[in-house]
Amino acid sequence: MVAFEHRLRVRFQHTDPAGIVFFANILVYCHEAFEEFMRAGGIPLESLIGKREQVLPIGHAEATFKRPFRAGQLVKVNVSVGRLGDRSFRLVYDLFGENDEHLATAATVHVSVDPATGRSTGIAPQLRALLEKHASPQ
Amino acid sequence: MVAFEHRLRVRFQHTDPAGIVFFANILVYCHEAFEEFMRAGGIPLESLIGKREQVLPIGHAEATFKRPFRAGQLVKVNVSVGRLGDRSFRLVYDLFGENDEHLATAATVHVSVDPATGRSTGIAPQLRALLEKHASPQ
Amino acid sequence: MVAFEHRLRVRFQHTDPAGIVFFANILVYCHEAFEEFMRAGGIPLESLIGKREQVLPIGHAEATFKRPFRAGQLVKVNVSVGRLGDRSFRLVYDLFGENDEHLATAATVHVSVDPATGRSTGIAPQLRALLEKHASPQ
Amino acid sequence: MVAFEHRLRVRFQHTDPAGIVFFANILVYCHEAFEEFMRAGGIPLESLIGKREQVLPIGHAEATFKRPFRAGQLVKVNVSVGRLGDRSFRLVYDLFGENDEHLATAATVHVSVDPATGRSTGIAPQLRALLEKHASPQ
Repeated sequence: MVAFEHRLRVRFQHTDPAGIVFFANILVYCHEAFEEFMRAGGIPLESLIGKREQVLPIGHAEATFKRPFRAGQLVKVNVSVGRLGDRSFRLVYDLFGENDEHLATAATVHVSVDPATGRSTGIAPQLRALLEKHASPQ
Repeated sequence: MVAFEHRLRVRFQHTDPAGIVFFANILVYCHEAFEEFMRAGGIPLESLIGKREQVLPIGHAEATFKRPFRAGQLVKVNVSVGRLGDRSFRLVYDLFGENDEHLATAATVHVSVDPATGRSTGIAPQLRALLEKHASPQ
Repeated sequence: MVAFEHRLRVRFQHTDPAGIVFFANILVYCHEAFEEFMRAGGIPLESLIGKREQVLPIGHAEATFKRPFRAGQLVKVNVSVGRLGDRSFRLVYDLFGENDEHLATAATVHVSVDPATGRSTGIAPQLRALLEKHASPQ
Repeated sequence: MVAFEHRLRVRFQHTDPAGIVFFANILVYCHEAFEEFMRAGGIPLESLIGKREQVLPIGHAEATFKRPFRAGQLVKVNVSVGRLGDRSFRLVYDLFGENDEHLATAATVHVSVDPATGRSTGIAPQLRALLEKHASPQ
């Protein structure tokens, strides 16, 4: 299993008057890492919208925030696949600061949906292969 | 127990190219309901930042999305208190659409922190009284 | 000429570490007022996307910020029509605080575009009637 | 004059149901480029908040959108200094797509403010030197 790694910088406007990143923005960072995970795997999200074969709405999300994220800080997001089912999968995110402090952990559960019917459908082979490559051996 | 109720409208820019609200924005809606809950209880969040007695960072958040939220839709958010500890509390959110369909459920865990020391501290009496008023009897 | 009026509250997460609203969010407030202007006039934006007759992308925007917008503050946005052309129109926004202080002024220029061709097209009659009703007599 | 260059990618959640970037997000991109301009010049914005010597609120912003920004697209933002006054300065942004198509042009006017008094103040020497280095010779 190789976790996918994405790096980003905390923007000024992501932080609130308490000087720390507003919690929902940390889930935005996770989604940004998910986008790059998909792009690096040859399946950019915008291609899914274009082809209309399969969309991947999020059915569940959760996050635990251990330390504050501050403006200007560099963040490393590791993405791995926590569970891979027939029609859904769970991505796990670990977010680290500059000295490798563990800032947060999060997860999103994505359902494979056929946009024509709005119903869940089997994960397409190309996506399944990508997810298997990053599945954690738990 | 009386759940606090907040109503809002899904904005055009909250929705993504798939025509549904981006998942992290639903947690923004929950926070908006939390802000109004605090304001209605006489403790607006901006007063906490001003007085610097106590801040309420979110240590954990989770959400389950049952149905898509669409642009222009009216949403009702019910807020109740799921757990009330010495130094932290859990808020539970239920989000409903126009025909009372259950769109999503979510929760945030807030820690009472002394901004001078950065350490957790007992929930202040006025806030505790407000939270007890909305605690669910579970 | 009757300006359309929309009221909103500055959210905690709209403000930055300096304690004031991030400038681009004030244009978001203007767009929110535009959405309500369209909805009140019987042409909600989401219906334009649905029908695919005409979309109204913004070709130009500008804003002058006179006073800071602070967390928790109530804001009144007045919308009027500054210029009404064949294929485009200019909306003017004036934003006021609780004591009627003038916080900001802004404008957006919308082009009527046929989504099938991507080209500009004449403003549809129902929208033109709505815009004429709110045109300033300049 | 050397324009400062910043590159970014259009995120899925920046786009709206029409499939193009919501206009206010393009000003967010400009601000992101401004943040990197300041960081590269040795004056990261978060240091200004920390030191409380000088803050740089935006008094005016404007943008003209020539072509749509689409999800997944790479964008290059060139930042230059359009006007450098005693207490304020104007930054000019040109945004380009992957084949160097000109997508948008924008500008922000920043006022140098003493956070202790809330009044405008002379631009500090280190910032003035940085701005002069990128001033366009108009």
